[in-house]
Amino acid sequence: MNITDIIAAKRHGNALTDAQIRFWIDGLESFADYQNSALLMAIAMGGMDARETLTLTDAMARSGDMLDLSRYGDATVDKHSTGGVGDGTSFIVMPVMAATGKVCAKLSGRGLGHTGGTLDKLEAVDGVHTDISEKRFFEIVDDIGIVIAGQTAALCPADKYLYALRDVTSTVDSVPLIASSVMSKKLAAGAKNVVLDVKTGRGAFMKTVDEAKALARAMVDIGRGAGRNVSALVTTMDAPLESAVGNAIEVKCALEVLAGRERGDVYEVAKELCAALGTDGKTFDRAISSGAAYEKFERMIYALGGKRGCLERLPAARYQKTVFASKSGYVSDINAMTVAQVVLDAGGGRRVKEDGVLPEVGVKLHVVLGDEVVVGQPLATLHYTRGGDEALADRLSEAFDVSDVGLQRRSRIVCKVQ
Amino acid sequence: MNITDIIAAKRHGNALTDAQIRFWIDGLESFADYQNSALLMAIAMGGMDARETLTLTDAMARSGDMLDLSRYGDATVDKHSTGGVGDGTSFIVMPVMAATGKVCAKLSGRGLGHTGGTLDKLEAVDGVHTDISEKRFFEIVDDIGIVIAGQTAALCPADKYLYALRDVTSTVDSVPLIASSVMSKKLAAGAKNVVLDVKTGRGAFMKTVDEAKALARAMVDIGRGAGRNVSALVTTMDAPLESAVGNAIEVKCALEVLAGRERGDVYEVAKELCAALGTDGKTFDRAISSGAAYEKFERMIYALGGKRGCLERLPAARYQKTVFASKSGYVSDINAMTVAQVVLDAGGGRRVKEDGVLPEVGVKLHVVLGDEVVVGQPLATLHYTRGGDEALADRLSEAFDVSDVGLQRRSRIVCKVQ
Repeated sequence: MNITDIIAAKRHGNALTDAQIRFWIDGLESFADYQNSALLMAIAMGGMDARETLTLTDAMARSGDMLDLSRYGDATVDKHSTGGVGDGTSFIVMPVMAATGKVCAKLSGRGLGHTGGTLDKLEAVDGVHTDISEKRFFEIVDDIGIVIAGQTAALCPADKYLYALRDVTSTVDSVPLIASSVMSKKLAAGAKNVVLDVKTGRGAFMKTVDEAKALARAMVDIGRGAGRNVSALVTTMDAPLESAVGNAIEVKCALEVLAGRERGDVYEVAKELCAALGTDGKTFDRAISSGAAYEKFERMIYALGGKRGCLERLPAARYQKTVFASKSGYVSDINAMTVAQVVLDAGGGRRVKEDGVLPEVGVKLHVVLGDEVVVGQPLATLHYTRGGDEALADRLSEAFDVSDVGLQRRSRIVCKVQ
Repeated sequence: MNITDIIAAKRHGNALTDAQIRFWIDGLESFADYQNSALLMAIAMGGMDARETLTLTDAMARSGDMLDLSRYGDATVDKHSTGGVGDGTSFIVMPVMAATGKVCAKLSGRGLGHTGGTLDKLEAVDGVHTDISEKRFFEIVDDIGIVIAGQTAALCPADKYLYALRDVTSTVDSVPLIASSVMSKKLAAGAKNVVLDVKTGRGAFMKTVDEAKALARAMVDIGRGAGRNVSALVTTMDAPLESAVGNAIEVKCALEVLAGRERGDVYEVAKELCAALGTDGKTFDRAISSGAAYEKFERMIYALGGKRGCLERLPAARYQKTVFASKSGYVSDINAMTVAQVVLDAGGGRRVKEDGVLPEVGVKLHVVLGDEVVVGQPLATLHYTRGGDEALADRLSEAFDVSDVGLQRRSRIVCKVQ
């Protein structure tokens, strides 16, 4: 068996055998980058069937360390989003599930480009460090039932290598390659029950509902094939999900939801994600209203090093600039991508992996889609730190459209795939 | 403009603009190998239309030095074969064209894998060196009207780079990539009139007639688009074309044809190639029978450094082993690929570019397709140098099939593309 024959097989439209796929992934770093990129392109263009995708995912999951959660039996739950804007559902879903007795031992990633990262948001809290030892990780799980920590380099190294290569060879947008990338990390992270939030729309990687459904289908099939209980929601990501986009500002927003003071789309989506993990709506509402979910989140923050009172004094930006409605009417659009780019340009996100982020930077939305507004009413406030970034407010105001006619409120949830 | 957008465009099935193609080829060495290989795979799988292929070829031709033959006006001729077994037609076609007053200033390559190389064959002659200066190259052309020399590294460096990458990424067998590779060198080599011999069959890169026709069409279209007078023959390459396969042994065979002592398929194909370059059959026959073509070849050999009497004492192998018919009947198959592999294994060819070749090694065929043979009659003789290689005679005998019924003789020439 050799790599050029495997490339040739995929290039000519053949399904790869399991042995060929494992030979490739097991020897990934021994082959030349240009051979691996040629094979990635052949897969991106030629596709992979469900059996190939499952084998690829399994081989990638086994390329490094695998988190062993077997001691918790079937109680382990995990949640993954394909990347959105103003999406802090993990901070609602995980604490609620922990409050209902499930085990939330979650590994997360950092933000890149227009999408935020769970770890960046957590580390916006004073004192919090997500880079913890495996020993400490399990101590927190055993103590509180919930932890969200950083993936070590030893988790899915094949995915890290392939993702970096795909990023520079225009092979990112491929269903089998995205599905195997996401699911290899989920398989390695060990949870038995997984819910996936597949975003679709302007602020998502999957621009159309059909693409999102195909990705959800592929990922659920992988999960099932690997003996996990996996389901997915396809949800729209045209406008930000929460009322905030940024790091500290999204934590604050999540705290408001956990405290029962904010509802809206994020509440609905979180509730449906929990439902997919087996928690009915009443139990969800009670976990919020009782403060049990809030307490789980708070205890986790302190277990991760959060300083006393840290949740009451989240980092605040030095400057604020508010944008206003230039006409009266109904908010008909809040472009998630535009808002995300403004936050990115103000230093609240990463362009490349090596960038740092300014935790206090972000955008607070004062309206949601469909709200009636009058001219001069505040639409959003840019929180920024660097002088000169106030100019970004002009772009922020372009994110909004106000129309003369009201639009019917639509659910974020397009469908469920299981 | 950036390389990832160009890769993405081709990956998604779009035609590349001329500007995109030139941006790629002009900056080829500044992009990462893995980006270039991803784009090659996208082209191999997604194809290129005639306009894209022409632009690619032109950009590759301009990537290095271009031979300026304009001083010879429209008299310049060139000939290219896509690679066969026992194919010394260049040694017939070029001398005949020179004998008719055309200018044959030809650059050639070395052999690789199962196909022989014109330079290796020439250098099998004692004293001959094909690595000559441009000054000497033109002196010989002006003096004799014919020279065949080695391509310098400065000719089509883009093709050299891309070919090396294609070879290790399973992107060799692509019509636009093969066509642009061949034709970029032909354009850079400067001849106004070019005939292409596109081989098809077991001993060729294009296994089917349809593939060979498509390649011929693509190359002729490129030539026309670039203002050259180009036509192509599609010829079969299931059995070796000549009665010999190897280096010195093929030169000997060519000398026999030039001396009018051997005819057969090689004579017919050479005659048709010359016809495509504008030389009628009678003129061809006369150039041979008069000895004029032989004289052109002989003078060129001496101009390239051939030692006195070198053509009368070509290198001979130390050992010979003949294989015989195991039954009586008619020769129904002589597998070109098997014969070529035997010669390669005996050291007469190169597996990788860095290999040396043993010029004296080869196979002499004593029969042609359709010949009636009796059991025990000699079929072929292996000429070898290294003790132990006599074992290859068993494989050589497997190249032959003898059947009870005679088969109708078929012309090698499938069609002409112009």
